[in-house]
Amino acid sequence: MTDAFPPELAVVRWFNTPSPLTLATLCGRVVVLHAFQMLCPGGVSHALPQAERLHRMFGGAGVAVVGLHTVFEHHAAMTPVALEAFIHEYRLTFPIGVDEPGADGPLPVTMARYGMRGTPTTLVVDRSGRVRQHHFGQMDDLALGYAVGALLAEAARPAGPAAADEADAGCGETGCAIPPR
Amino acid sequence: MTDAFPPELAVVRWFNTPSPLTLATLCGRVVVLHAFQMLCPGGVSHALPQAERLHRMFGGAGVAVVGLHTVFEHHAAMTPVALEAFIHEYRLTFPIGVDEPGADGPLPVTMARYGMRGTPTTLVVDRSGRVRQHHFGQMDDLALGYAVGALLAEAARPAGPAAADEADAGCGETGCAIPPR
Amino acid sequence: MTDAFPPELAVVRWFNTPSPLTLATLCGRVVVLHAFQMLCPGGVSHALPQAERLHRMFGGAGVAVVGLHTVFEHHAAMTPVALEAFIHEYRLTFPIGVDEPGADGPLPVTMARYGMRGTPTTLVVDRSGRVRQHHFGQMDDLALGYAVGALLAEAARPAGPAAADEADAGCGETGCAIPPR
Amino acid sequence: MTDAFPPELAVVRWFNTPSPLTLATLCGRVVVLHAFQMLCPGGVSHALPQAERLHRMFGGAGVAVVGLHTVFEHHAAMTPVALEAFIHEYRLTFPIGVDEPGADGPLPVTMARYGMRGTPTTLVVDRSGRVRQHHFGQMDDLALGYAVGALLAEAARPAGPAAADEADAGCGETGCAIPPR
Repeated sequence: MTDAFPPELAVVRWFNTPSPLTLATLCGRVVVLHAFQMLCPGGVSHALPQAERLHRMFGGAGVAVVGLHTVFEHHAAMTPVALEAFIHEYRLTFPIGVDEPGADGPLPVTMARYGMRGTPTTLVVDRSGRVRQHHFGQMDDLALGYAVGALLAEAARPAGPAAADEADAGCGETGCAIPPR
Repeated sequence: MTDAFPPELAVVRWFNTPSPLTLATLCGRVVVLHAFQMLCPGGVSHALPQAERLHRMFGGAGVAVVGLHTVFEHHAAMTPVALEAFIHEYRLTFPIGVDEPGADGPLPVTMARYGMRGTPTTLVVDRSGRVRQHHFGQMDDLALGYAVGALLAEAARPAGPAAADEADAGCGETGCAIPPR
Repeated sequence: MTDAFPPELAVVRWFNTPSPLTLATLCGRVVVLHAFQMLCPGGVSHALPQAERLHRMFGGAGVAVVGLHTVFEHHAAMTPVALEAFIHEYRLTFPIGVDEPGADGPLPVTMARYGMRGTPTTLVVDRSGRVRQHHFGQMDDLALGYAVGALLAEAARPAGPAAADEADAGCGETGCAIPPR
Repeated sequence: MTDAFPPELAVVRWFNTPSPLTLATLCGRVVVLHAFQMLCPGGVSHALPQAERLHRMFGGAGVAVVGLHTVFEHHAAMTPVALEAFIHEYRLTFPIGVDEPGADGPLPVTMARYGMRGTPTTLVVDRSGRVRQHHFGQMDDLALGYAVGALLAEAARPAGPAAADEADAGCGETGCAIPPR
């Protein structure tokens, strides 16, 4: 990434937050962004319970856990109404946004901007607003806890060229293909 | 239960079967009926994977595993279209029917006929068509395997007064209240 | 197996039972025999908790769950004294016997008599005293429950030539090699 | 703790390391010390697999994972010979030391020096040699990963008065009682 700052979220509806969230207003905090689909088994069994535990353990002044419902298939099934019921039944308490539907294709806007390869995807953003982890699939609890702990211990840095570890993100400027199902 | 035979299924749509199923046509086989809602966490994490394993291990001439989507809340979220996507994503392969919506209330027809208390509910029907287990909540694998094995080893019996173990069903003629949420 | 009856247990010490057990005195009941080693991870994490649950759910007049400590390696580590501490710490309550050490080799006597291939091994013996399941490795809860339920529903039969399903046991007259480690 | 540095390890035998380890020589690294007993179920099912994963993920220049076999009961069962077999069977690859038996009681020396309350106990030592976490019981993966990440991101500091978070250790200068069994 040549731009040190990640693209902003495009969200059409929020749950579990009194006001919309933006990465800009979360600057200064470590942000863990969980992109998921409510009917994607890997997210339901692993990534969302992980996000909820992370939120309960570390959510607060220093760490923000944010969900993003990035529907790229079965759009008729995973509507905001269905998501609302899902959030209620699964007792999720962290803020969750609905990614804006794409204008000309199945991919929603934020998912496309970040070049996500599918769901679940976990992004970890440092206190200066840089994406430091971009992980597709289940992320180990030890690894996620480690990333959050390390980034929270860092001082916020002014924006600049991407650091070396950003090259590990695995997702380039041109975006990545969503895996065929 | 004073009637030895259980009420028939009322299903408006079937998945994973070329033709509709009835308990009458399944007579002679042990039937395991899994009532669930696609957004009920206990069913998703435990009862449905259990039903799928049971189907793969024992489904065949002697044992029929049947799912029943008994939606009694969040009707706008758990539509047949959403269920179809759910079945696809969770790779469920046993026959699943959509319980007929109730005429004057949130409870679907089959769920009301059987007096089910909620989801997940597992019914085990013997080869003569009698309900021998009526279990609300997660059912232990050892206990379910035991029930299926014992009933399959029994010879089919002609209909008659309910046997003693049917009294354990815990759900009477007049139906049971769905637990308040 | 041409002999319909399994060889008798050779046990040098019993835990959790006031008097020694023999298959002969258990005749009329379904017997589930769990052969294990206390330092074999698969037995500790899966087979022994399964045996304990089976004992608590079905142990009684009709079903007997019996453990057998079949030490074929690390003999200096897995002594009866160590086993006693293990049984205490893991809160095992079903009867457990120590297989008799072999006279000329690492394999204990009962393990050799049955031609077991390693640990954990689960044997299921019907009410007439015939071995109907001989399973090396983890056994699925549904499958074990099914076997117990089916055999308990059978009437005890007089001894005779082995039934067809005994041929599935996978372990012949000449015994099976313990897998190289 | 008024002494910023923890007491040294007293180990009578090491496994998985070519030479004995001391906290002094590990200074500059974050040290995660797992105290366990090989027959303590909580350690076997949770703490030791966690330690092994931590070692494989982060063990190296910055992080040292060290096991300590702190036998305070069933001494005849949990001998070094038994531990060696256990380490082999459970495929543990991180360095593990045997805590020195106590001169006048069941508690081993290091366990007593640290005032551990039982097993499993996890200590996290920062790069300057200070104990920053002292946790009795199972420790959540997210919490442990977080602690390691945060401490590794810190610069090593010269010794001085204990920081505020050390007061959370829950274990004072005078030691803590081992819970009655």
